[in-house]
Amino acid sequence: MSFLDKILGKPLPSSQAEEEKIGVLAGVPILGLDGLSSSAYGPEAALTVLMPLGALGLLYIGPIILAILALLTILYFSYRQTISAYPGGGGSYTVARQNLGVSAGLLAAAALMVDYILNVAVGISAGIGALISAVPSLHSHILALCLAALALITIVNLRGLRESGLAFGIPTYVFVISLMAVLSIGVVKAAASGGHPVAVAQPPALPPGIGAVSLWLLLRSFASGCTAMTGVEAVSNGVPAFAKPGVQNAERTLTAIALILGLLLGGIAYLSRAYGIGAMDQEQANYQSVISQIVGAVVGRGAFYYITIASVLAVLALSANTSFADFPRLSRMLALDGFLPRAFTGVGRRLVYSFGILVLAVLSGVLLIIFGGITDRLIPLFAIGAFTAFTLSQAGMVMHWKRAGGTRSRVPLLINGLGATVTFVAVIVILVAKFVEGAWITLILVPALFLMFDRVRRHYSSVSRQISCPRPLDLSQNEAPVVVVPIEGWNLITEKALRFGLRLSTDVIAAHVSLDERDDEALRKQWAREVEAPSRRASLNPPRLEIIPSPYRLVVGPLDDFINMIKDEYPDRLIAVVIPELVETHWYESILHNHRATWLKTDLLLKGDQRVVVINVPWYLGSLKDRN
Amino acid sequence: MSFLDKILGKPLPSSQAEEEKIGVLAGVPILGLDGLSSSAYGPEAALTVLMPLGALGLLYIGPIILAILALLTILYFSYRQTISAYPGGGGSYTVARQNLGVSAGLLAAAALMVDYILNVAVGISAGIGALISAVPSLHSHILALCLAALALITIVNLRGLRESGLAFGIPTYVFVISLMAVLSIGVVKAAASGGHPVAVAQPPALPPGIGAVSLWLLLRSFASGCTAMTGVEAVSNGVPAFAKPGVQNAERTLTAIALILGLLLGGIAYLSRAYGIGAMDQEQANYQSVISQIVGAVVGRGAFYYITIASVLAVLALSANTSFADFPRLSRMLALDGFLPRAFTGVGRRLVYSFGILVLAVLSGVLLIIFGGITDRLIPLFAIGAFTAFTLSQAGMVMHWKRAGGTRSRVPLLINGLGATVTFVAVIVILVAKFVEGAWITLILVPALFLMFDRVRRHYSSVSRQISCPRPLDLSQNEAPVVVVPIEGWNLITEKALRFGLRLSTDVIAAHVSLDERDDEALRKQWAREVEAPSRRASLNPPRLEIIPSPYRLVVGPLDDFINMIKDEYPDRLIAVVIPELVETHWYESILHNHRATWLKTDLLLKGDQRVVVINVPWYLGSLKDRN
Repeated sequence: MSFLDKILGKPLPSSQAEEEKIGVLAGVPILGLDGLSSSAYGPEAALTVLMPLGALGLLYIGPIILAILALLTILYFSYRQTISAYPGGGGSYTVARQNLGVSAGLLAAAALMVDYILNVAVGISAGIGALISAVPSLHSHILALCLAALALITIVNLRGLRESGLAFGIPTYVFVISLMAVLSIGVVKAAASGGHPVAVAQPPALPPGIGAVSLWLLLRSFASGCTAMTGVEAVSNGVPAFAKPGVQNAERTLTAIALILGLLLGGIAYLSRAYGIGAMDQEQANYQSVISQIVGAVVGRGAFYYITIASVLAVLALSANTSFADFPRLSRMLALDGFLPRAFTGVGRRLVYSFGILVLAVLSGVLLIIFGGITDRLIPLFAIGAFTAFTLSQAGMVMHWKRAGGTRSRVPLLINGLGATVTFVAVIVILVAKFVEGAWITLILVPALFLMFDRVRRHYSSVSRQISCPRPLDLSQNEAPVVVVPIEGWNLITEKALRFGLRLSTDVIAAHVSLDERDDEALRKQWAREVEAPSRRASLNPPRLEIIPSPYRLVVGPLDDFINMIKDEYPDRLIAVVIPELVETHWYESILHNHRATWLKTDLLLKGDQRVVVINVPWYLGSLKDRN
Repeated sequence: MSFLDKILGKPLPSSQAEEEKIGVLAGVPILGLDGLSSSAYGPEAALTVLMPLGALGLLYIGPIILAILALLTILYFSYRQTISAYPGGGGSYTVARQNLGVSAGLLAAAALMVDYILNVAVGISAGIGALISAVPSLHSHILALCLAALALITIVNLRGLRESGLAFGIPTYVFVISLMAVLSIGVVKAAASGGHPVAVAQPPALPPGIGAVSLWLLLRSFASGCTAMTGVEAVSNGVPAFAKPGVQNAERTLTAIALILGLLLGGIAYLSRAYGIGAMDQEQANYQSVISQIVGAVVGRGAFYYITIASVLAVLALSANTSFADFPRLSRMLALDGFLPRAFTGVGRRLVYSFGILVLAVLSGVLLIIFGGITDRLIPLFAIGAFTAFTLSQAGMVMHWKRAGGTRSRVPLLINGLGATVTFVAVIVILVAKFVEGAWITLILVPALFLMFDRVRRHYSSVSRQISCPRPLDLSQNEAPVVVVPIEGWNLITEKALRFGLRLSTDVIAAHVSLDERDDEALRKQWAREVEAPSRRASLNPPRLEIIPSPYRLVVGPLDDFINMIKDEYPDRLIAVVIPELVETHWYESILHNHRATWLKTDLLLKGDQRVVVINVPWYLGSLKDRN
């Protein structure tokens, strides 16, 4: 245990659960990394769609980001309302389920789960991809590095919430502070120069426009930019992780995240227009990200540039962590409702939902391995889940307000209605625009998960129906079982098993599989002398010896047939198979003995039925102290 | 089973054992392949040592081979005598053990076992090596080819003795007939030309001598040439494999093998001298084996040459098979005497000793993998074992004759004494001459095996002492056990286990590990209502409910502690742990349920002692038909 303790930390008692909860300062990195890191690719994604317009595209980025900020505001208020309405954790699953029905809830859950898994794979591979650009000699180890990063994040999460907050806090706050500083300096410089600042490091000139503006183009740009909002739902789902007062702490955390995200998005949009910075083709050799161009233009390529860019990369890689905070919590909720295996409800040694963490690690690890750590192709997929969940959650809130009724519900209803409509449009646009690029995978995975939830639920219901006991303990007809004792010969192990069998029933049958019929007669004689005679003297029905022929020298098969025969012979009795077993003290001794007892136990468990009970009477080598 | 049947053949009933036995015609390939194939490298090994003498060396090959033939004659008579003295199988192990004591027997056995394993690896790699020389494009697949050949030989042997005889008969007889034909033609040609025949394909001229003759050189040449005799002992060990009359069939087989081997060796020695053929440096590009040179000189490089050489290679590769016939038989004998795990005594589905065959396959497979299929380095090792066994066997026969006494024993005693002396000298010479090349490995392996035999024997003796029952069945003090039933809640599974527990004893304790203390009170109430009340009504001591706290949310550990507590509470009673277990009908259902029952059973078996009996009351999903 000591090795496990070192890696995962000492087990924590349940009574310490309250102390493991988090405040706002730890909440922002744990639940906000995904949302905040989105600012690093959201605006760039919007600008990428505008590339065909050349410099003209920059005219539209302002309005598009404004629309996104408006949507962010709507989402912010909506989720704030959700947090106070659902203090026990109000993720999209809960909200949709309670207001729109079970199917809507499961749909939201399936969409979010796919999103979380993709987010881990994409975040880690993006971070490692950036590391590779910096240190090209590592290129042949991409997959190994991705898996190592995944293992690290998994272990940190298994160690518990508070430790994750500490581990991820530093890069998050370095990222927020340095990027905010760069953007503020930039805005001041731009304002001072009347909107036309001189770049310290000149960004590459924008290519001439080759396309015309269309509503479709602007919609696609908006949909792509919307990826900047993925991760915003995390806080509403994570309310129970907060220290008391939970709702206030969660609201403050959401406010902090939304505010920072909004400022980052606005700053990036303003400065890209002011400095004339557009997206570049990633396939080209001199590619620079939009953030890199902005930081270079504002502060030049000094130490500060490198600190900021490094923190961007760290936060991108760590954004995977938000999934680790939310996926286990969501799957626990589904498991509590019977839609996922119960193991998801278990609280691990460090008071986190270890099983969910491990399942997420394995699934995203499989994704990383399938795609060799190059997950560019997965990026198009991974906003769909989030926006599906947004839409269902907002629609759920609309129903919530409708039911509440009254004038005080009118404004919130309008906000949520607007949000639901806009996010729904975004889902459709993303689906259509990225269908061929991979969005179809989501269209397969989400219904598959949905079906699985249903199957699991049916199974649990069926089991619970089958085993529920509608009556008090029934002690009538509790007849003694027929006891079968498979034996290899007459020895102390056999004797112990027989003694136990004779306690249980007067019908005891010893079954000996004959591998060499020359020994049978001797055993029969020994049996009469050593077993039958003393039983008769003790006025007991003597155990009967059955010698089972085995022409093909097998043991378990003939015993199995024999037990079936006994079952037919006593159609309304329990059959108790008492298996004497020699247990080796050292593992290496196990190659010196046969394992028929183990095989027989497994065989009886797999082929058995309600009427067969298996009793294991062990005999330990080297321990003669106990006679019983 | 149908797939296994196809690969290994249908299982054979024990009653068919007699029909699976072999005659002389099958005996020669099965037990003689190793011995006969030795003629392909024995004389060459002797000539290789003589290489420094140049053409002068050919003067000495005659006497050396004559000495070897004399030794072969001695071995032949010795082993013939052994066969009639030990009709139940008189390998070196048996002879040495009976006449020189257990240690000598085990030493012979260990030496032979090492030799058998090496023989498989060397034989297969030599055969595949020859195939590679013919088809160089296979060079990158050496190891895979070796392992495929090993698998093939293993399967053929698992299919049974008669089938092995058929499979290996054809190449063996092609080898014997074609090589004998070549040698006869050569001898006739040489005699006709007055000892100086003209070669059809001229062998390379011998290099000039660069060294002087010494006794040490001749001894080394003799010792190397002795490898030609490895495998001769196989028949004496394999007597029980022969059809009746076993001794006569075995003697005839040994006669056939010794006669053919002697003729081959003599013919090769005579023709190499007559044609002036010496050994060549294997490292050189134009290397040809002595046999290849002789066949070329006698019949030229036509179709017949290629048939003969191909049969030589096939027989070399298949010589591994002799080990497969003898290793399992030897290890069975050791296992019957308690020096090896009992699994070696089992008769497999095809009436062969399958376990020994598989162990030999695995060990030689490991050797092949370690050496990458290039086992040239192992060749020096592998005569030591055979000659150690020869020496011990002959020395044993000397003691045999001494004990018999009388004038009729004098000549056999002299023959065996001479044989023991000469083979002992050979062992010493081989050990000294090849110590650095690898003979030291044998010096480590053989004592290691020897020690292992001793340990295994001690273990079995100790077990047999511990479990032997010195008295008839003792039915006094057969008190009812204390029953512990670990439960998760009140349901039909629990009820079934409780009913069974109440049959067994009046002291029944239900143990519930509390993972969420909020549920404890409800369970207590339910227990009083559903269990205690009806028990009292039935005038039974009601099962007591114990709720076990688990601050670290573990189940098996706290249960284990609880059972230990109960053991202390009832120091002289058996503790019967009745484990209710939900058994899934489909494998995929198993991920939906916890496996605490399995963990608990394993834990109790590993940590338990004589006083704990484990009772498994299974509950099968989807089978409500049986109420009991």
